[in-house]
Amino acid sequence: MSERTPEQTVQAAQDWWSTSIIKMRPGIIEFSGYPIQELIGRVSFSQMIWLMLRGDLPTPDQARLLDTALMASVDHGPHAPSIAIARMAISCGVDLNTAMASATNVLGDSHGGAGQQCMELFAKVREAMATGAALEVAVDQALVWYTGTHGKIVAGFGHRFHPVDPRAGPLLAQVEAAAAAGVVEGVYPAIAREIEAALGRRKDKPIPMNIDGATAVIFAELGFAPPLGRGLFILSRSVGILAHAWEQSQTGVRNKGPMPKEIPFTYAGPDRRALDEKQS
Amino acid sequence: MSERTPEQTVQAAQDWWSTSIIKMRPGIIEFSGYPIQELIGRVSFSQMIWLMLRGDLPTPDQARLLDTALMASVDHGPHAPSIAIARMAISCGVDLNTAMASATNVLGDSHGGAGQQCMELFAKVREAMATGAALEVAVDQALVWYTGTHGKIVAGFGHRFHPVDPRAGPLLAQVEAAAAAGVVEGVYPAIAREIEAALGRRKDKPIPMNIDGATAVIFAELGFAPPLGRGLFILSRSVGILAHAWEQSQTGVRNKGPMPKEIPFTYAGPDRRALDEKQS
Amino acid sequence: MSERTPEQTVQAAQDWWSTSIIKMRPGIIEFSGYPIQELIGRVSFSQMIWLMLRGDLPTPDQARLLDTALMASVDHGPHAPSIAIARMAISCGVDLNTAMASATNVLGDSHGGAGQQCMELFAKVREAMATGAALEVAVDQALVWYTGTHGKIVAGFGHRFHPVDPRAGPLLAQVEAAAAAGVVEGVYPAIAREIEAALGRRKDKPIPMNIDGATAVIFAELGFAPPLGRGLFILSRSVGILAHAWEQSQTGVRNKGPMPKEIPFTYAGPDRRALDEKQS
Amino acid sequence: MSERTPEQTVQAAQDWWSTSIIKMRPGIIEFSGYPIQELIGRVSFSQMIWLMLRGDLPTPDQARLLDTALMASVDHGPHAPSIAIARMAISCGVDLNTAMASATNVLGDSHGGAGQQCMELFAKVREAMATGAALEVAVDQALVWYTGTHGKIVAGFGHRFHPVDPRAGPLLAQVEAAAAAGVVEGVYPAIAREIEAALGRRKDKPIPMNIDGATAVIFAELGFAPPLGRGLFILSRSVGILAHAWEQSQTGVRNKGPMPKEIPFTYAGPDRRALDEKQS
Repeated sequence: MSERTPEQTVQAAQDWWSTSIIKMRPGIIEFSGYPIQELIGRVSFSQMIWLMLRGDLPTPDQARLLDTALMASVDHGPHAPSIAIARMAISCGVDLNTAMASATNVLGDSHGGAGQQCMELFAKVREAMATGAALEVAVDQALVWYTGTHGKIVAGFGHRFHPVDPRAGPLLAQVEAAAAAGVVEGVYPAIAREIEAALGRRKDKPIPMNIDGATAVIFAELGFAPPLGRGLFILSRSVGILAHAWEQSQTGVRNKGPMPKEIPFTYAGPDRRALDEKQS
Repeated sequence: MSERTPEQTVQAAQDWWSTSIIKMRPGIIEFSGYPIQELIGRVSFSQMIWLMLRGDLPTPDQARLLDTALMASVDHGPHAPSIAIARMAISCGVDLNTAMASATNVLGDSHGGAGQQCMELFAKVREAMATGAALEVAVDQALVWYTGTHGKIVAGFGHRFHPVDPRAGPLLAQVEAAAAAGVVEGVYPAIAREIEAALGRRKDKPIPMNIDGATAVIFAELGFAPPLGRGLFILSRSVGILAHAWEQSQTGVRNKGPMPKEIPFTYAGPDRRALDEKQS
Repeated sequence: MSERTPEQTVQAAQDWWSTSIIKMRPGIIEFSGYPIQELIGRVSFSQMIWLMLRGDLPTPDQARLLDTALMASVDHGPHAPSIAIARMAISCGVDLNTAMASATNVLGDSHGGAGQQCMELFAKVREAMATGAALEVAVDQALVWYTGTHGKIVAGFGHRFHPVDPRAGPLLAQVEAAAAAGVVEGVYPAIAREIEAALGRRKDKPIPMNIDGATAVIFAELGFAPPLGRGLFILSRSVGILAHAWEQSQTGVRNKGPMPKEIPFTYAGPDRRALDEKQS
Repeated sequence: MSERTPEQTVQAAQDWWSTSIIKMRPGIIEFSGYPIQELIGRVSFSQMIWLMLRGDLPTPDQARLLDTALMASVDHGPHAPSIAIARMAISCGVDLNTAMASATNVLGDSHGGAGQQCMELFAKVREAMATGAALEVAVDQALVWYTGTHGKIVAGFGHRFHPVDPRAGPLLAQVEAAAAAGVVEGVYPAIAREIEAALGRRKDKPIPMNIDGATAVIFAELGFAPPLGRGLFILSRSVGILAHAWEQSQTGVRNKGPMPKEIPFTYAGPDRRALDEKQS
């Protein structure tokens, strides 16, 4: 390392932050080669999201399908941990950026990762189909893999609160319309419905697709990698997080806890005791 | 408090998380009264953002202007602290949600608050005009207030990197076109241009409007409260943060520091010394 | 800038991350000049905290007083927003670092800033005394300043939950003992007690010092700057945050909301309505 | 659920935040049964950390060994991602809590998880020994498991920067002294040294234990669960994060990027291009 010339060291420093996303020079900003001034007014926020994540612009029709998935996932109410966190955070005297960060931070495997896991399941089905397996067989194989690695709860199907998730059907209708119009291939709706049917047979009761399953269908149809299923969900849920943080900020409540103070928390530990002499 | 009946306590617990944003019952999700299944496929992501923050739906034209402001601010390169943080975070083995949270968290007063501060300045100008002051006088009064409370750097004008910010002009053209079409009133472009002129006179050199100034014009025209200027910027910049985190994740680099290891950091403290006996 | 030689650019890069806290060379780590291998086994965690923040080692007695302030603030139960956030975060499938970050992040002005604000108040009193004002007069002047800038609730005094904070008295006894032993000067206990008395007179009821007031006395006696009052509190409360996150992780609960699901949240917004035609 | 009486619902709400860590009533705070007023002045910060995480008080000697591990890991310089993040965050105008949160948040698997992974490796060795395997054999079996699940880099051994980590030897000396004094059993130093030897044989060059290995020995000797290895490291590194954030805050630099502005980042994407007609 010490043998590098100063010129080489400066070059290494420049390359340390190399990116294919954005080019900047004084007065110049280009995204994957498109000058920003040519994008403004001509491409939508959803097209820009796609460009940033994929390096190419989608057609307006593709972007509209992405847009629909993003608009549908913005919020699921203040009893969701992320939303409750945003509201409590604001009451502690922090700014919107801080409240939003504490909240999006918890969109982890259980709370924000369902779309990603569901997309991984879809990919396994497709993989099996590529080797010649029939849909039903491919779904069976993929479910064996899934439950072995992720446990019994299959992300994207079933809901703790909604017997039928009112968002799933309309979203699936959108992707099917897009497939009919040639915007997408339309292979994932069938995969998702077969998974739904297989889960219903296994549990002997309906396990209907939920919003994570439906948006996973959309993201998979549009060719996004599974981890971006989580990333796109975060962009969407950030809207609900911001809205609730903002609503909370208008109340002026300070240091909001999870429950009214008149409901004390239960203590389940040892009874009062004195220090042992050898402990201090 | 202790006199409340259990029924009253249960009611207090329900009210503790009261919201006007979303209604949920099993199978039912409504946003400010609009059932989700009627919104899907009919309103855009930008309309949904507006609905969540304002409680009412904008027209598609209003939403398009908001959409343009959101698409224009997504990224300013890996030398911005938020983006560098996202990239370093990913290399530490955390998930996208965590990398994004560490990054959006730093969109504080200096890095993410310019739009909000600029909107506050615009509001002061408008306030002065409402009392009958001419634009130029109102701008002068507002700038005196601003520099007294916020210091000499006026948010939304001038740029450390770009002599002319290539995003400001096209954005302003969009809002002026919207004003010409009656979508917005069109009062803030003139205010912003007068501030730009006043700053130029004071510093005796051009201090051109930057993207924060231009998006502040849009947000103000659309009637958003100043703190939401920051909130909307966070939604937009989250896209760049996600894109860079994702690009970084594809490299496989572990524990990325801010510079190549061959560039050691300078130590500026005391020389090596021994412990004093009374210190241990 | 472009005129710099590559050597100068490399030097600028080295200086960009200049610090007086730590020196590192391969095989060498020194903190403010003290080699780490000479510190290990000879100085305590609290001495190290002091060294890192101040650049010099305290005596063991000074460190013990700091240690006591740190041990006393570790937790105030799961109804504190930070603790509730840590527990909900863990249930979302994130790691301890992420849960702890979401939680410490909300130790803002209202939830974690009381010590800092109280130290600023103490500093104002001391400033007034330095100009010759008697303690009672100095406290009166400082309280006028405080309520004018911070509002009516004086940080460090009074408690929403405890009529008398059981931590304040024992902490004050520690600092008074340290003053008697010559470890600290002992000027802030009297200032704090006079503020307590003045507040009691104003409100016509006791407003007893709480833990934030008592630790502010300790930190001020030890010569820490007010913002470090918040920093030290965060170090302390991080322990409770970690402990609750860890306890929660042992339960296996997924996506813990703020209340049991059987308690629905109240919806306070508009009734169900249909989309207007011009909105889509 | 709807069949519960209001009394039962209130009880369920109380139990929702049940904990064994802390009991609170007005005027009363007890940790695992110990009233706070009896702990203050009698137990140290390190004893309190142990009590919070384990539910029982350690002896002062046990706590001193924990204290040493905590004091040794506070910082590794501004080129560590967590420290760089803290410094950049502060320059964006956020408070210490926010800067610290963004930084501790990235102490993930690669940056903060080494201690945890090393403790898991030690546990595997001990498991194999419990079935009668000799140390060398047990180490071999555990390393096969480790590299199969975690990859080739064995956490706790070897260092990218230090040929020999100056912290490892002195820390190991502390735990061996504690073992000689009967404070701990003293089984993990031998396990760690055998791993070190085995790695050296495999790579045909020394792979000396680093600080993560040495603190893992201490935490394992003291009986902490592996995930708490990460938790304790976070408590320790929080000190360095706070110190660097504080030092940075004194400089007044705004929006600090990772490198001086004169070093531009490399753009590696497509050349400038125009929008296709079908894209807008």
